[in-house]
Amino acid sequence: MGRVTVRRPVVRLTEDGRRRQQDALAAEEPLELRINGTPLAVTMRTPGHDVELAHGFLLTEGVIGGAGDVSTARYCDSVDDAGRNTYNVLDLALAEGVAPPDTGVERNFYTTSSCGVCGKAALDAVKLKTRFSPAADDCKVLPETLVALPDLLREQQRVFQTTGGLHAAGIFTVAGEPLVVREDVGRHNAVDKATGWALLDGRVPLGGTVLMVSGRASFELVQKAAMAGIPVLAAVSAPSSLAVELAEEQGITLVGFLRGTSMNVYTRPERIIGS
Amino acid sequence: MGRVTVRRPVVRLTEDGRRRQQDALAAEEPLELRINGTPLAVTMRTPGHDVELAHGFLLTEGVIGGAGDVSTARYCDSVDDAGRNTYNVLDLALAEGVAPPDTGVERNFYTTSSCGVCGKAALDAVKLKTRFSPAADDCKVLPETLVALPDLLREQQRVFQTTGGLHAAGIFTVAGEPLVVREDVGRHNAVDKATGWALLDGRVPLGGTVLMVSGRASFELVQKAAMAGIPVLAAVSAPSSLAVELAEEQGITLVGFLRGTSMNVYTRPERIIGS
Repeated sequence: MGRVTVRRPVVRLTEDGRRRQQDALAAEEPLELRINGTPLAVTMRTPGHDVELAHGFLLTEGVIGGAGDVSTARYCDSVDDAGRNTYNVLDLALAEGVAPPDTGVERNFYTTSSCGVCGKAALDAVKLKTRFSPAADDCKVLPETLVALPDLLREQQRVFQTTGGLHAAGIFTVAGEPLVVREDVGRHNAVDKATGWALLDGRVPLGGTVLMVSGRASFELVQKAAMAGIPVLAAVSAPSSLAVELAEEQGITLVGFLRGTSMNVYTRPERIIGS
Repeated sequence: MGRVTVRRPVVRLTEDGRRRQQDALAAEEPLELRINGTPLAVTMRTPGHDVELAHGFLLTEGVIGGAGDVSTARYCDSVDDAGRNTYNVLDLALAEGVAPPDTGVERNFYTTSSCGVCGKAALDAVKLKTRFSPAADDCKVLPETLVALPDLLREQQRVFQTTGGLHAAGIFTVAGEPLVVREDVGRHNAVDKATGWALLDGRVPLGGTVLMVSGRASFELVQKAAMAGIPVLAAVSAPSSLAVELAEEQGITLVGFLRGTSMNVYTRPERIIGS
């Protein structure tokens, strides 16, 4: 573990010529998640906070709703050529009475509706799985609080500052207090690590909070906010069409292009004071 | 089809106040790929160029190596509540003698090596599947050609200019001539659309070309370059550790932080003239 960055030689080319130097890279390795010993998914992630990642992933999938739904989490004895544990296979045992997920989660995900595979089916699938309703959360947030979040997120991105290579996700109170910031080569993993932390800390559903992400807001990220009961999702870049549709249906305030002192509010603007 | 952007009302907040306006969003919808009628994968993508996307996806997975390996591609009769075809289910029939992929591609992908799931297993899995060797490609490219690519890519990004919400991938000759540029809400989809176009146009393996991507360079993107026989991969942002390892093993020149007039060259710098 602790393999969050890797040093590599690099040739740096500029107008002033070229020189050899050392560069720090964000680590990326596969993580296999198993449930009760059965392989469920492989994700390419930055090592570290794997147990949180697994909990956040299962929260998004609707398998668990609280820390008590998982009885144990342990790394399997997966070893590399030198006989060292790779720490890349994590097995979670579910508590008694918690139903394991269907394997092939991703492929089954959007086919629960009668219309086959379409945007509406994807929205319906989330509706079926949500345990917590962000829609009823009547928290309020100041625009001044929101515009400060990108800098707060960046300040806490320790690995990004070294590598320039990571997505970040942070959960903040509506007063702008950071609860957790996590980084990963995959944007969805960064969010899973953050919501997984919150779940393990007994904070889910995350009423009265803002999920801030460093990039774009996709359908998948709104889904993760919905499953964790987060009422406000803010992104530095643009949302997709389906992200906005899902935010609307789930009653989430979706903010995009949060840069400098301005932002676009796509859904539920009444949570932003003065809107 | 043609649902590449979607217009939505938005509340724009700036220091000068707030106003309602219309915003164009990048469309995102699920696409289910089927092979000979059997569901293989669902990906969230921007509609359009779906047939190219499917070919690029199967090229990456090692299922096909040329346009002749697919006999037909057609949208299934998946209809929404109003009875309209969703154009979100695409079925490809493989040519005689072409083996269909194992279902559960993703989960089986990194477990082919004796070491279980680790970075080396991921590298080995690509080695097993590659049909073309970028390693032997002795093409050369000028640094001046490379530094011009980000602007060329951006100029051709029509949807990004409207929405600010898309990843882009372009394939260029080493002389800097664009062959194809594709956009998508998913970075991997943008690359699949570009390599799929090339495959359908009889241009795979793509010797003497540069794949330019708008974001970071992950393991997955290097894998896609390798499977298409592309010798140079250039990214605006940082590569991950495993992306560099795979580029090294596959003999691909990997360029990161390609911004302004400078760049980092992580592997095979000898393809860059003067290095």
